[in-house]
Amino acid sequence: MFISDCLGINDKGNLTIGGCDTLELVQRYATPLYVMDEQQLREHCRQYRSSIEKYYGGNGLVAYASKSFCCKAVCRLAMEEGLGLDVVSGGELYTAMSVGFPAQRIFFHGNNKTPQELTEALEYGVGQIVVDNLTELELLNQLAKSQERVARILLRVKPGIDAHTHNFIRTGQIDSKFGLALETGEAMQAVKAAAALDWVQLVGLHCHIGSQIFDIAPFEETARVMLRFMAQIREETGLELTMLNLGGGFGIQYLPEHDPKPYETYMDGVSRTVHSECEKLGMKIPFIVIEPGRSVSGPAGITLYRVGSVKEIPGVRTYVSVDGGMTDNPRYALYQAEYEMLVANKASQPKTQKVTVAGKCCESGDLLGENIPLQQAVPGDVLAVLATGAYNYSMSSNYNRLPKPPVVFVRDGKARVVVKRETLEDLIRNDCE
Amino acid sequence: MFISDCLGINDKGNLTIGGCDTLELVQRYATPLYVMDEQQLREHCRQYRSSIEKYYGGNGLVAYASKSFCCKAVCRLAMEEGLGLDVVSGGELYTAMSVGFPAQRIFFHGNNKTPQELTEALEYGVGQIVVDNLTELELLNQLAKSQERVARILLRVKPGIDAHTHNFIRTGQIDSKFGLALETGEAMQAVKAAAALDWVQLVGLHCHIGSQIFDIAPFEETARVMLRFMAQIREETGLELTMLNLGGGFGIQYLPEHDPKPYETYMDGVSRTVHSECEKLGMKIPFIVIEPGRSVSGPAGITLYRVGSVKEIPGVRTYVSVDGGMTDNPRYALYQAEYEMLVANKASQPKTQKVTVAGKCCESGDLLGENIPLQQAVPGDVLAVLATGAYNYSMSSNYNRLPKPPVVFVRDGKARVVVKRETLEDLIRNDCE
Repeated sequence: MFISDCLGINDKGNLTIGGCDTLELVQRYATPLYVMDEQQLREHCRQYRSSIEKYYGGNGLVAYASKSFCCKAVCRLAMEEGLGLDVVSGGELYTAMSVGFPAQRIFFHGNNKTPQELTEALEYGVGQIVVDNLTELELLNQLAKSQERVARILLRVKPGIDAHTHNFIRTGQIDSKFGLALETGEAMQAVKAAAALDWVQLVGLHCHIGSQIFDIAPFEETARVMLRFMAQIREETGLELTMLNLGGGFGIQYLPEHDPKPYETYMDGVSRTVHSECEKLGMKIPFIVIEPGRSVSGPAGITLYRVGSVKEIPGVRTYVSVDGGMTDNPRYALYQAEYEMLVANKASQPKTQKVTVAGKCCESGDLLGENIPLQQAVPGDVLAVLATGAYNYSMSSNYNRLPKPPVVFVRDGKARVVVKRETLEDLIRNDCE
Repeated sequence: MFISDCLGINDKGNLTIGGCDTLELVQRYATPLYVMDEQQLREHCRQYRSSIEKYYGGNGLVAYASKSFCCKAVCRLAMEEGLGLDVVSGGELYTAMSVGFPAQRIFFHGNNKTPQELTEALEYGVGQIVVDNLTELELLNQLAKSQERVARILLRVKPGIDAHTHNFIRTGQIDSKFGLALETGEAMQAVKAAAALDWVQLVGLHCHIGSQIFDIAPFEETARVMLRFMAQIREETGLELTMLNLGGGFGIQYLPEHDPKPYETYMDGVSRTVHSECEKLGMKIPFIVIEPGRSVSGPAGITLYRVGSVKEIPGVRTYVSVDGGMTDNPRYALYQAEYEMLVANKASQPKTQKVTVAGKCCESGDLLGENIPLQQAVPGDVLAVLATGAYNYSMSSNYNRLPKPPVVFVRDGKARVVVKRETLEDLIRNDCE
């Protein structure tokens, strides 16, 4: 009935998540409020992990893409579930290390890692630094030399795949700030440069073709392109790379009409390609890494808001204003990203109107959605926005000096705060006298 | 030569701001770095203030719109310069009160103020609460009653002016989440409702027609519409309102080809309209409030970044990656807002290329600009983005867990930190064990 398994309706007609009544949650924790179902997070981790078992005989790793939702609690959860971690900054790395995440299972990404970030990654003993470009390759070699530690690296390659998704999140093609191009010979040049350096050890390749992709074909084609490039490397340099990181990008269901493939289907399809291609190329099957983020955290989360005013402009539209907005979810303002919404305290009632949901920022573009089917909403109602577990908390800001909402994990009818609500004092903590 | 007066080039060929060498600033404070010229901030405040003297004989107030850039230092500066303050949230109000800003000179705006925010505003004795809608009017009356304090209010009116600016920042027309419509009779209904309530005192009206407006005509027309509505109120209800808040929205120069009018021209044009219209209507000239934000803070600020990699994709484009991006300036990602940029350590050299300036976030849309004329840039160079004083720090996020840059004020060759750089510890401060 709902787009996420963790949601339901109780006998009061209220929306539930993880067995908790959302109305009780807002009474206890106030609004706006991020709520995530811990059980669903864990199940997503387990599904991916068991797919690696099933399709690659365990010769692989699921690295959770923490940029989708990063805090100590989720790093700890990924660690407990035996996952690896994809981090993209010193801040994400610091968060992971603060809970004792095993550094050898971390992949450090980014198109422009700073010298300080690379230094910290080396000091922590990060298992795989994913080198984006030739400048970084040389810089890393120098830093590794000065620390007298060999850096294990992957190279980020642009496989030239156009994944037919939103322009902003299409990253596999040649016109991208990320990675080394195959077509121009840049990627092979980087392989040879890395092989010649003393303080980096090239163990494999990484690619990522975009986000929120529903087709399987681009993933299969990407695996094929990357394996052929690995064979070409073996041929031209004698180097046998042992790791292939295929990135993430698996689409999730934001709206009822979305129809993403079950993860199994991706994993099955891609593994068939990997097995058949390796056989053709006479290659041992490499250690396969995948990096799901949105598909782990996205469907597990919702955001709860209190409705303030309802403004009906005759013949124009109805604005329903809530006590959050682009500060806790900038994805509509940025990409016109669509979400399913409902009035949490009227969850069993039919959606009889279409409204514009506005945030409380002093900015006209501060909307959470337009033409949103919704139950009749009045001031004081609780609005739930679904599938906000990814790229909401992580992209939140303090625009208009609004404090960031807390994150609550729910499981089996119990709730606990994993990130506290920001206070007004927090907002001026770094202001000087 | 530069779009802001506070900028220059020293004999080393380096960009200067407020008499400080930008290369010395980044050496001392690291990158990314927000730098603001305090003298220019103060001059903008003084220019607006002296315009109120000149055109309204001092019968008015300049309220700095703190949403454009809010911290303790700038609230203190606005206070020292004798300005009022426009705040839009409990967080901005808290910041203002933390430096002892006189509450009676504060205007509290917002389309969806929460009961808690309104309660705090009443407790602080905020001089003017700008009521957005009928729901809020009733709520405020109740809250004021329970505190036994009369709330001085303005009503936010949509004057129905289309200011021919970017859709996102056009707010005077009827299809807006802000304010009460004139055409539908909603505004008059609110006036009558307010007049009948015991715990609110209606003293005037507020309007705001949008942002970054270069024409004077929409401002003049707005003043005319609002004054006629005040006359209509007098006629229909006998109520003589004494305050007219005309909002902000004055455009600034982001690019060399922009040609904003000097503030004087706005102030002169609008005051002529106010004087002639009041004479026609037989009205005493109301106390005039204006709320400049961007035009006070925007031109006074720049952002300094370190160039990491430079990626030339033959036949496609050149990406220059910096160590910040949409996290410290989301305006390109949000609105394709354009900025002038230069290599700070090559400021006297000609701009010989056009590049795409990319941030360090793991997101393809994380760009600061495309087709940017720039000096030849190499890794290690310092990139300056100009006129970033408004809506950069205030909109910044911790996406990818990047810490927010510090804000440094410069003046007469001296620099001081007014907002400290966030630390890695700050990022996990609210994470629970």
